Amino acid sequence: MAFVVPALQRSYREVRQYSVELARPLSAEDQGVQSMPDASPTKWHLAHTTWFFETVVLVPHAPGYRLFHDKYPYLFNSYYEALGPRHARPQRGLLTRPSLEDVHAYRRHVDDAMTDLLSKLDAGLLATIEPLVTLGLHHEQQHQELILTDILHAFSCNPLLPAYDMRARQVPTQQGGAKPVTWLSREGGLVEIGHDGVGFSFDNERPRHAVLLRPYAIADRLVTCRDYAAFIADGGYERPELWLSDGWATIQREAWTAPIYWVASDDRGEWRVFGLHGLEPMDPDAPVSQLSFYEAAAYAEWAVARLPTEFEWEAAFDAPGIENMTGYVWQWTRSSYDPYPGFRPLTGVAAEYNGKFMVGQQVLRGGSLATPQGHTRRSYRNFFPPAARWQFSGVRLVRDL
Amino acid sequence: MAFVVPALQRSYREVRQYSVELARPLSAEDQGVQSMPDASPTKWHLAHTTWFFETVVLVPHAPGYRLFHDKYPYLFNSYYEALGPRHARPQRGLLTRPSLEDVHAYRRHVDDAMTDLLSKLDAGLLATIEPLVTLGLHHEQQHQELILTDILHAFSCNPLLPAYDMRARQVPTQQGGAKPVTWLSREGGLVEIGHDGVGFSFDNERPRHAVLLRPYAIADRLVTCRDYAAFIADGGYERPELWLSDGWATIQREAWTAPIYWVASDDRGEWRVFGLHGLEPMDPDAPVSQLSFYEAAAYAEWAVARLPTEFEWEAAFDAPGIENMTGYVWQWTRSSYDPYPGFRPLTGVAAEYNGKFMVGQQVLRGGSLATPQGHTRRSYRNFFPPAARWQFSGVRLVRDL
Amino acid sequence: MAFVVPALQRSYREVRQYSVELARPLSAEDQGVQSMPDASPTKWHLAHTTWFFETVVLVPHAPGYRLFHDKYPYLFNSYYEALGPRHARPQRGLLTRPSLEDVHAYRRHVDDAMTDLLSKLDAGLLATIEPLVTLGLHHEQQHQELILTDILHAFSCNPLLPAYDMRARQVPTQQGGAKPVTWLSREGGLVEIGHDGVGFSFDNERPRHAVLLRPYAIADRLVTCRDYAAFIADGGYERPELWLSDGWATIQREAWTAPIYWVASDDRGEWRVFGLHGLEPMDPDAPVSQLSFYEAAAYAEWAVARLPTEFEWEAAFDAPGIENMTGYVWQWTRSSYDPYPGFRPLTGVAAEYNGKFMVGQQVLRGGSLATPQGHTRRSYRNFFPPAARWQFSGVRLVRDL
Amino acid sequence: MAFVVPALQRSYREVRQYSVELARPLSAEDQGVQSMPDASPTKWHLAHTTWFFETVVLVPHAPGYRLFHDKYPYLFNSYYEALGPRHARPQRGLLTRPSLEDVHAYRRHVDDAMTDLLSKLDAGLLATIEPLVTLGLHHEQQHQELILTDILHAFSCNPLLPAYDMRARQVPTQQGGAKPVTWLSREGGLVEIGHDGVGFSFDNERPRHAVLLRPYAIADRLVTCRDYAAFIADGGYERPELWLSDGWATIQREAWTAPIYWVASDDRGEWRVFGLHGLEPMDPDAPVSQLSFYEAAAYAEWAVARLPTEFEWEAAFDAPGIENMTGYVWQWTRSSYDPYPGFRPLTGVAAEYNGKFMVGQQVLRGGSLATPQGHTRRSYRNFFPPAARWQFSGVRLVRDL
Repeated sequence: MAFVVPALQRSYREVRQYSVELARPLSAEDQGVQSMPDASPTKWHLAHTTWFFETVVLVPHAPGYRLFHDKYPYLFNSYYEALGPRHARPQRGLLTRPSLEDVHAYRRHVDDAMTDLLSKLDAGLLATIEPLVTLGLHHEQQHQELILTDILHAFSCNPLLPAYDMRARQVPTQQGGAKPVTWLSREGGLVEIGHDGVGFSFDNERPRHAVLLRPYAIADRLVTCRDYAAFIADGGYERPELWLSDGWATIQREAWTAPIYWVASDDRGEWRVFGLHGLEPMDPDAPVSQLSFYEAAAYAEWAVARLPTEFEWEAAFDAPGIENMTGYVWQWTRSSYDPYPGFRPLTGVAAEYNGKFMVGQQVLRGGSLATPQGHTRRSYRNFFPPAARWQFSGVRLVRDL
Repeated sequence: MAFVVPALQRSYREVRQYSVELARPLSAEDQGVQSMPDASPTKWHLAHTTWFFETVVLVPHAPGYRLFHDKYPYLFNSYYEALGPRHARPQRGLLTRPSLEDVHAYRRHVDDAMTDLLSKLDAGLLATIEPLVTLGLHHEQQHQELILTDILHAFSCNPLLPAYDMRARQVPTQQGGAKPVTWLSREGGLVEIGHDGVGFSFDNERPRHAVLLRPYAIADRLVTCRDYAAFIADGGYERPELWLSDGWATIQREAWTAPIYWVASDDRGEWRVFGLHGLEPMDPDAPVSQLSFYEAAAYAEWAVARLPTEFEWEAAFDAPGIENMTGYVWQWTRSSYDPYPGFRPLTGVAAEYNGKFMVGQQVLRGGSLATPQGHTRRSYRNFFPPAARWQFSGVRLVRDL
Repeated sequence: MAFVVPALQRSYREVRQYSVELARPLSAEDQGVQSMPDASPTKWHLAHTTWFFETVVLVPHAPGYRLFHDKYPYLFNSYYEALGPRHARPQRGLLTRPSLEDVHAYRRHVDDAMTDLLSKLDAGLLATIEPLVTLGLHHEQQHQELILTDILHAFSCNPLLPAYDMRARQVPTQQGGAKPVTWLSREGGLVEIGHDGVGFSFDNERPRHAVLLRPYAIADRLVTCRDYAAFIADGGYERPELWLSDGWATIQREAWTAPIYWVASDDRGEWRVFGLHGLEPMDPDAPVSQLSFYEAAAYAEWAVARLPTEFEWEAAFDAPGIENMTGYVWQWTRSSYDPYPGFRPLTGVAAEYNGKFMVGQQVLRGGSLATPQGHTRRSYRNFFPPAARWQFSGVRLVRDL
Repeated sequence: MAFVVPALQRSYREVRQYSVELARPLSAEDQGVQSMPDASPTKWHLAHTTWFFETVVLVPHAPGYRLFHDKYPYLFNSYYEALGPRHARPQRGLLTRPSLEDVHAYRRHVDDAMTDLLSKLDAGLLATIEPLVTLGLHHEQQHQELILTDILHAFSCNPLLPAYDMRARQVPTQQGGAKPVTWLSREGGLVEIGHDGVGFSFDNERPRHAVLLRPYAIADRLVTCRDYAAFIADGGYERPELWLSDGWATIQREAWTAPIYWVASDDRGEWRVFGLHGLEPMDPDAPVSQLSFYEAAAYAEWAVARLPTEFEWEAAFDAPGIENMTGYVWQWTRSSYDPYPGFRPLTGVAAEYNGKFMVGQQVLRGGSLATPQGHTRRSYRNFFPPAARWQFSGVRLVRDL
């Protein structure tokens, strides 16, 4: 306990501070906008992550804690049915009140109460509270990534195409991106999948269990923008045989002809790509990003390869020669987001955290440049519906041996 | 000209300044929000009215005028096909950039150029420009009313139900509201309808022409909230025989059971009404407001009366004993918004101002507490689709004799 | 009475028989199809018109009458709220049962009871029943026209483009269609509008009243397909300045580029038109048909003319030299479907017949080749929403003098 | 070959004949109706299965074969992009032509050509054609089940609730349905999954591969209507904690409160269930049917159990004591419809048969009373989206050990 509490206090401070840093390049106006039902305003993210600590830690465990505002639980609950009714998701952009200033006051109010609580922990309370605080911090880190993906989407809807921050990390030139893919052979057989119990994990990464794999080869590098541009140039968006049925229906209905943030110059000879720095010429060696699962799968079909299962991906995590498994783009897998054998959701307030989304989604593995440092890991399971394409999501290929 | 120019300069200053005053109680966050496709953000209204002067007056007539920003014409054109392409209406709320500050700079830039132009007018230029400036000022006044109706709608979507400004004019207690209606008899016969040529009018008020009316009686006062509450209490929203077919379909589909801003208290004994002061107890003597045409017509049917035609309304404008024809609520008429005999739209840039909306809308007459001083007049024709209910729109009844 | 009853019996027999004749070229399969919510299956028309007599005449007035089937009132009520709940309009095409055979048995059951009742009328009962029977026959004639327009729409959705009947009347070559328009001058002044009281009329044609008209000139002939093809060739569907705002939005959203049943041949040089005879080469001298109000109004704008008001149309009904006021196509007017001054709906069961639709619709005048003989008249007011384009609806122009 | 060909000929005759038998209780009107985009008319099924043989067997392999009608390939292609464009799925109900009689003539034309071709096979042609014919027969059997599920849905939309055929097989009383569930323990370990190569299988059942299972217990019997009624009575449709997030959203949006064909009697004491015999009192011992995956999963949660993975289901297929694995209802599994390791779609015309649907769907196992004799098998993988509830789909539970 002598060590645990100071570490927890430090993590709390750092994670909470980082959210504020991420919002700093944005005006109050920017922070209020919601560009589609699936995205949320920055201000909402700042408040919702605060609500999580208030509801899960302070209200049940901090004696004498007073709610900052009695309507905020209604406004800033996201989807927790057990935690009461809530404001409709598609209407988050209408909340011009509370003001950004009020939300910062809310954050300070909760941070003060948390700091106070963390300074008074005895061993019994620590055992109860530490997992909740840790969950709250990982939760806030997930929303930190969403702050970036959501504002990027909002800015992409603005004809001025503003830059979020010219100093922001961008999808980088892949180290050695120009080199041809090396296919790394993997033996298959029984492999252990899931979290090994050291450090934090979400419930959906557990229990650890064995999975039988066939031999396969995995690409040492990510698919680049150059690769993907070749797919487009080869008629990728016009050839139904490359697409899953739902994918083809989607690109027809939505008139997709390229990744969401790719802009063809007038003479069609060059691509520009919109990102955190605004609109810039495409970097051909950068990993392609902001793909939907449908696009990822069609690309793989075109490349005479396939997407890895999440098990193949995890088993190759530290394969010799493999590059950029995390840090650049989330990588779509061919695995539906199903429960692991023996999966049990968390009990109590966090029961709704992951399990109730286990249908209709695909697993992504890895982590992106928008993922906060230290948040992701080998066994981490991210998930989105197959049509989602506003995340930093790309492709790594595998082939059967 | 000695008198015209100073008056024009003064009007320009005053009208432009009033828009800024109206926005003052609102934060930058408030001014960016769009709560439905039919409403627009305050910031957009401030910019669009500015764009109108820039496009209609400065670009064609001010030598050497430089656009403030080359993308603004695209962002702030509303619906003028002849004036180029434009940003999609339902996406106006996504424009967190330009910032409110930028929009104010835009206003100053245009105001400076306008002031400069107005100070240099010769007689020839005056003849050309004066009608355009005057049109632009009346246009801006129309948007001043929309600033209020649109922010009120946005605030009504916020569970905090914020007040716009406690000092704002509200729908007032009708003088003598509690008194029974007096039915003022009108003779009918041939009456002259439309603008008489003195002062400004829109093209849709012209040409003046004779209309033959039958005798009728018009209510001296507006329908009050008490009146309308009696309609609700009598099952008004549950009796199809009172409603037009489209109206009944609308209230079924949208689950309307009262005016949009009426809130029943928990015990159903009392109504509260949301307005520019926030949520307040219903004032029974205040004119009912924010009705759709469908609701107005159903109420009239229930009251064994009918809505006036716009001609009956205009002919009774200064009937002895009649009250509150303007200044409180717009009054729905039974007249579709059709062109007057011999109607010709304005030519040039303003051709699209009114005529192209002459289908599927109903005429409202009068003017509301949100209408700027001096904007409305006896022959003024306002118009909205029959389902619109976020305006300051109420009812005055007539009966056949 | 000696004359009235036999005439009524004869009319009943003839009108009822004609519905059966109209359906004869159609298979049972054809008669069940509903191609859009606004259209109904032939079988439904046959049953609904029968339900009208059963509900309005037999149930209240024929002692001992037994319903043919206790669910039929639910299935075959169209929109009469006062006459009970009803099957959802867009689901009429799902009623494969009752079979067509059952519907014919229903018709015979009701016809037998009607024949029986009509043979036993005393003077008192006649006074009550005659208006109801007459209304029912005019009602059935309206549905006879819809049988044709609705099956034509259904067949237009079938890639085989089947012909309804090669012997059916088609939109004919206009007598002298190739000749230039002659503009017939009309003086204006006070004219009497509405039904004069001789013979049957609907409530919406009354009361007769005076309207003041300005001088105008009306085209002696209808707009032809050649005329309309010239409008298309001149970019009519691509020029927003010709269109009402709602019309332009409609043709953009729905991608209209020609009348609904016009098919361009591959080389764009020739039009073919789908009609009751199937797909045939366009007859350039035939009146253009199946236009929406939006298209009619845009055409008029292009032709430097306008649509007549319904009053101008009625006042010119028997102008010397005017042709084809009825019998070919309904003619869109510039008049919204508003109540006449002093309008009172019918009382009792027919109260919902017309009045409740008086918003959001445009008046058409005349009558088409699909209108049964003897159904229409000078004062007849047909009405449809401005986007409706599956009726036999065309254009006659007027100009201001 | 001496044996293969006669068997193929006999199968062809029998399967083709059975489709005709299934349609026999239905009128031509019934056979044309389409009650939702996901369902198809009986007539369309009869034609589409015929088109499959024409396109896949006759056109490429029968010398001199003449298309029955050159538009039919367009009308009756379902989703095969490689086989040309096609009529829009939601519009199949508009095809009153070709008539049912024409479709039968089409079937005879193709049957004659197939019979002729099958009688002339040499060994080389047999090797090519036999797999295609066999595939076509299994394809037709799949549509035979859909004929029943689709007409049942159409009839459920008809207020008359007609019976398909009183002699049809219904969801039967489960043998011993009243007895409590016995949980059959299964050891887990490595099990072989997928088709073993004896007889026909679809590509999605292959390749056979090992899967590692944990120990589990599987219910010996299906969930009954009595079981499911207890779930409803216990507030099953009102408790969000039992539902997947998408499931809860669906039942809220669609206002589901019971299985699609369950009808509460007025006093709520008794359920009636609509089926192939029309509306009948609920048989409490019959397996519950016509559930969506969402409902199946919520029921399992309520029952403190879970749905089996498709592997657990297959491994328990012939467990001692297990009942009704096929023949009554398809059983939803917790497995998303993902490709098996090493999956390769068929090549050629059938490439689009299964693989392109492998996203967003759940696997069902077993077979229903509507499944034709001999069609299903242990390794058979049926699949539908999680909201689909018009199939004969029910539940068998498992529990972790």
